Amino acid sequence: MAWCMVATWPFSLAGLEQAARQLQAGSSALEAAIAVARRVERDPEVDSVGLGGIPNLDGIVELDAAVMDGRDLSIGAVAALQNCISPVLVADRIRTSTAHQLLVGSGAEKLAAAMGLERTCLLTDKSLKTWQEQKAALAARQSIPVGHDTVGIAALDLNGDLAAVTSTSGIAMKLAGRVGDSPLAGSGFYADNDVGAAAATGLGEEIMKGCLCYEAVALMRSGLEPQTAAEQAIRQLHRRLARTRGSVGEMALVCVDRQGRIGAAANHASFQYAAAAPGQDPAVRPAPQVS
Amino acid sequence: MAWCMVATWPFSLAGLEQAARQLQAGSSALEAAIAVARRVERDPEVDSVGLGGIPNLDGIVELDAAVMDGRDLSIGAVAALQNCISPVLVADRIRTSTAHQLLVGSGAEKLAAAMGLERTCLLTDKSLKTWQEQKAALAARQSIPVGHDTVGIAALDLNGDLAAVTSTSGIAMKLAGRVGDSPLAGSGFYADNDVGAAAATGLGEEIMKGCLCYEAVALMRSGLEPQTAAEQAIRQLHRRLARTRGSVGEMALVCVDRQGRIGAAANHASFQYAAAAPGQDPAVRPAPQVS
Repeated sequence: MAWCMVATWPFSLAGLEQAARQLQAGSSALEAAIAVARRVERDPEVDSVGLGGIPNLDGIVELDAAVMDGRDLSIGAVAALQNCISPVLVADRIRTSTAHQLLVGSGAEKLAAAMGLERTCLLTDKSLKTWQEQKAALAARQSIPVGHDTVGIAALDLNGDLAAVTSTSGIAMKLAGRVGDSPLAGSGFYADNDVGAAAATGLGEEIMKGCLCYEAVALMRSGLEPQTAAEQAIRQLHRRLARTRGSVGEMALVCVDRQGRIGAAANHASFQYAAAAPGQDPAVRPAPQVS
Repeated sequence: MAWCMVATWPFSLAGLEQAARQLQAGSSALEAAIAVARRVERDPEVDSVGLGGIPNLDGIVELDAAVMDGRDLSIGAVAALQNCISPVLVADRIRTSTAHQLLVGSGAEKLAAAMGLERTCLLTDKSLKTWQEQKAALAARQSIPVGHDTVGIAALDLNGDLAAVTSTSGIAMKLAGRVGDSPLAGSGFYADNDVGAAAATGLGEEIMKGCLCYEAVALMRSGLEPQTAAEQAIRQLHRRLARTRGSVGEMALVCVDRQGRIGAAANHASFQYAAAAPGQDPAVRPAPQVS
């Protein structure tokens, strides 16, 4: 049996190096993927996930996260969760300890409190300063960067089990309560032990229009290898959106299959991801751009 | 060009009769489908949608709704929205007037207020009484009905445009902030003018595990007619869940394709839907049960 892991963006590399050792030693894909997300959530330098994530238009940090277990398709997800440094832990608790899969807003915060998680202020000096600058830029009718760098992880473990995990503070200057693709099964993530797993990053409003991760897994199910599936899923959705909408927002995905093969693609040039597998040291690579 | 409409559950029939006349007269599929949902939302006798919907475990009615336009795949959705009798109108406003697609909780309520929608108490004497009885039943460790009857509509208009719409108060005695499939693109609904449209009803936690509506549309895209696609989408997911989870919750879907053909299926015997098309008077029918 092989193991492998892919994770979005260079900021995942340190967590992935540690997770690769865990997977080699027999950790579950889900556990290893959650560990990567938690490390990025706690890193105040990453301005699009967890602590230090850019607040919404009202100045409040609202987080989205999800986990999916490819064995039984069980899902846990939170959206618009405030004051919690570990949204991915709350997501996993929903998966394991409730009859539900997605809790949002104050309902999710109530569960985090019931779990004994400390209430945390997620603002940092840096994110507050960025927010003030972006607020001023919007008032002056200047454009601001979309800021959509979700940490998304897809992993296969030595047992043949697959998992997908996501965590994000969402796009910059979003309206209060805005939810993107990251906590939505099939859009931001998907995992099925029969086939493979996938996780996305980009403008959630575009990714949701085509259930990007479900489609990537469906393409692998039809026989495509992960790299071809990733490219085709991005290309199909990009072209469908371009045909009737003109401009298309940024989208990217990473995926793995049950044989331990890896794929990644984006409709823009700036997407990089971290990957590791037996004989492949953890490293950051650029993803092919397709459109 | 043909037109047609399918809508979940017998409570949709009165709205569908009116919508059929609208479609015949040239209304858009989206407009006609929204009209059906609004009528069910305002009906206090329907205990699973809008006014009179069963409150959550805390005694608060939280509503989910969505609209999707098959022309450009644009989506609007709300989840865990309180005090608003027309969640589907808020969903459509998100689609047309914001850069977002899904707003939840107090963020969605803020938009409803900005739209000038009156704050409404959604409890009725009947729903409050049901809630008290269910609360007592749970305290006595008795089981309660799941209560998952989402209004879901899929429609094709004379212009060849497709739409899908959903609205629900969610399952009975849900945790505060729980969101099911109804406001999630690909799970509770999907529409693409290239192919068809679909809407689901049932236990959202199961439907989300397989992106049921995206899959039904994908099967139509591969060449299946809507009835076969509906049956196959339900069967595939039911069997995948049964294999690793044992018991499977109730799921059902309705769908239409761009040629004006209709499909419906469920994994249980009690699902009925309303349908209308040229030469087919609006009527309620039982859906085939597959598993």
